[in-house]
Amino acid sequence: MKKEKTTIHDIARKLNITASTVSRALKDHPRISVETKKAVQKAAQKLNYQPNHIAAALRNGRSNIIGVIVPTADRSFFSSVIRGIEEVANSAKYNVMICQTYDSYEKEIASIDALLNARVDGIIVSYSKSTLNFDHYNRVKERGIPLILFDRSNDELEVSHVVIDDFLGAFKATEHLIQQGCKRIAHFTNTRKISIYKERLRGYRDALEQHGLTYDESLIVASDLQLEDGRRSMTQLLDKKPDGVFSASALGILGAMQVLKENNYKIPDDVALVGFSNEAFTSFTEPALTTVEQHSMRIGNAAAEIFLQEVTADSEKFIPQKIVLKPELIIRSSSLRKK
Amino acid sequence: MKKEKTTIHDIARKLNITASTVSRALKDHPRISVETKKAVQKAAQKLNYQPNHIAAALRNGRSNIIGVIVPTADRSFFSSVIRGIEEVANSAKYNVMICQTYDSYEKEIASIDALLNARVDGIIVSYSKSTLNFDHYNRVKERGIPLILFDRSNDELEVSHVVIDDFLGAFKATEHLIQQGCKRIAHFTNTRKISIYKERLRGYRDALEQHGLTYDESLIVASDLQLEDGRRSMTQLLDKKPDGVFSASALGILGAMQVLKENNYKIPDDVALVGFSNEAFTSFTEPALTTVEQHSMRIGNAAAEIFLQEVTADSEKFIPQKIVLKPELIIRSSSLRKK
Repeated sequence: MKKEKTTIHDIARKLNITASTVSRALKDHPRISVETKKAVQKAAQKLNYQPNHIAAALRNGRSNIIGVIVPTADRSFFSSVIRGIEEVANSAKYNVMICQTYDSYEKEIASIDALLNARVDGIIVSYSKSTLNFDHYNRVKERGIPLILFDRSNDELEVSHVVIDDFLGAFKATEHLIQQGCKRIAHFTNTRKISIYKERLRGYRDALEQHGLTYDESLIVASDLQLEDGRRSMTQLLDKKPDGVFSASALGILGAMQVLKENNYKIPDDVALVGFSNEAFTSFTEPALTTVEQHSMRIGNAAAEIFLQEVTADSEKFIPQKIVLKPELIIRSSSLRKK
Repeated sequence: MKKEKTTIHDIARKLNITASTVSRALKDHPRISVETKKAVQKAAQKLNYQPNHIAAALRNGRSNIIGVIVPTADRSFFSSVIRGIEEVANSAKYNVMICQTYDSYEKEIASIDALLNARVDGIIVSYSKSTLNFDHYNRVKERGIPLILFDRSNDELEVSHVVIDDFLGAFKATEHLIQQGCKRIAHFTNTRKISIYKERLRGYRDALEQHGLTYDESLIVASDLQLEDGRRSMTQLLDKKPDGVFSASALGILGAMQVLKENNYKIPDDVALVGFSNEAFTSFTEPALTTVEQHSMRIGNAAAEIFLQEVTADSEKFIPQKIVLKPELIIRSSSLRKK
C-alpha cells in the first residue's frame, strides 16, 4: 500500500493556521509574513510534504512530456529517430517517454491510452505493422494534443508526418546494382502491404524498367523481412540464379548473405547485395553491407520541431505538414564490384 | 493552444440539468431515469466529452504505468530486459514507459521527475554511469512508489535489485581463455569504477590467480568500452604481445578484433577474444564472438515480478530483495582454438 501523502491540510493542522494560508505561504505570497512562511517551510520539510505536481498539471494542462510510440526501440532506425526527437525536445525542456508496440495493434491502443493518462503534451508515432484502424489516433486529435507520424504514415488522419522518400531510396539501390552489372535482381518485400514497402517495391520496379530490364515476379519474395526470413527467401531463390538482391530490410539482406556464403557464392561478384536501413551491424559484417541510410536523426529532429510549432500555435490555424527527407545510398563492399 | 475540453458542466448547461445529475447519469446511477441517461449520453457524444482519466487517476492513485529508466534502449542487453519487464507487466495489465538517460545524471533526474509527474505506479532503473548521488531516488521511495534497480545496483538505497553475478561471468570468461592455452590475457575495463566493472575485473584477476598466472597491470586498459575505445586499447596493447583479450563490453572486443585483423593476426590462434554481453552483432562477426550472456529477459521478468509483489504488499512489511542471476558463457569461434 502507498503511504498516505502529506497535504497542506496536515501542515495547517500542525501550525494551527488555515490551509489557504499554507498554500499562499508555499507560493511566497506577499501578504503572508516572513515568520509564517518560515514556519510553513519547516513544517513542510518535517512532514515530507511534496507539492502535487499532478494537480498542478491538471490545472495548467501541461506535463512537459512528449510520448513516442515505436514498434521497438532497439532497431538503429527507431533509436536514432528517438535520439533526434530528444535532441530537440530536451533543448525546449520537454522529456521524452517511449512506448513499444512490438508491432501489435492492441499494444498500440494501450500505449495511446497510457500516454493520454500520463497527460503528455504531444505524441509522435510510427504505427504498428498490424494497425487496422485509426480510431485511437482520433481520440488524440479530438483532445487537441499534437500528433505527428513518422516513417509509416497515413494521409487519412490529416496530421503532420515526417517520412523519407522510400521510392527514391529503392530506386537508387536498384540502379546501383544495375550499374554494377546485375541483370537478374531479386527483391525481398514485406507481406504486409503498408506504404513504405509498396514504395520500395515501386522504386525497384521503376529502376529496372528505366534501365530496360524486365520486371520478373518470380524474383520477388514477400516475408516479414527478419533474419530467418532472409535466409529462407535466399534459399528459395538460389535456383532462379539472381546476380543481385535488394532487400527492403537490413536483417533480410544479412540472412541472404549468410546463405550465399554457406553455399560458396562470392559476394559481390556472383551475387551483389543491398539492404535498407543503415543498422549498426551492416558495417560489421564481411563483406560490409551496402544499405540505404534514412537520416533517422533528422526525421526525429523534424518531428519534434513540428510538435513545438503545433503546441504553441493556434490550433485553428495550424496546418498539418508533410516533410519528405531524401535517403542516401551507403555503398560498401557487398555490392561494389571491381571493374 | 489546446482546445477547451468539454466538461460535465457543458453537458448540464445544454440539457438544463445539474452537473451532479450529469455525473450520476454517466456513472449509470440507479436514481437517474433512463431518459435522462440517454439524453446525457447523446449530448456527451455530440460535445465530444472525454471522462477525465487524470482526475480519476488522482482519486484512485493509479495509472497502471511502470516507468523504466535505462541508459539507452538500443543495446541488446537493455532492450531484452525491457522485453522481460513488458512480458510480466502486460500480463498484469500494466503498461511500460521508457525514459533514456544516455548515461547523463541530469537526464536521470529529469526522467524521475517526468515519471512521477506521469503518476507511474513503480519505477525500474538501471542508473546512469555518471550518477553522483541518489537523492532523486529517495524522492521515489518517500512517495511509497516501488523502486527496483537492475544491473547497476546500490546497496545504500535499500531497495530491491536484480543483478547478474558479474564476478562469475568474468571468471568463466577468463578461465575459458586459460583453458584455450592463453598465458598473457589482457583485460578492457571501464574508467568509471561502478560495481559491475569492478566485479568483472575481480573475476578476471581471480581466475588468473587460481590458475597460477600472474596478474600484470600493464595488460589492463581502462576506457569507455565503446567501439573506438576497443580499437585504441588494442592498438596500445599490440607491443605487449597478449595472446588473449577479455573485454568487459561487447563493442570493446569488436574494436579489438578489427585492429587485430587489420594487423594480420589470426583469431583465435594468435589472440583469442571474449567479450561481455551477448549483443546481436556478436554472432554476425567473423569469427563470431564468444561472449557472456546475461539472461537479460530473465532480469526483466524478475524486476517486474518484484514490482508486482511490492505494489500489492503492505509497505511496512515488504522487505527489499536481492536477486542474483548466473551468467552463461556463449563459446564461439573467436576464442575456440582447434587442439
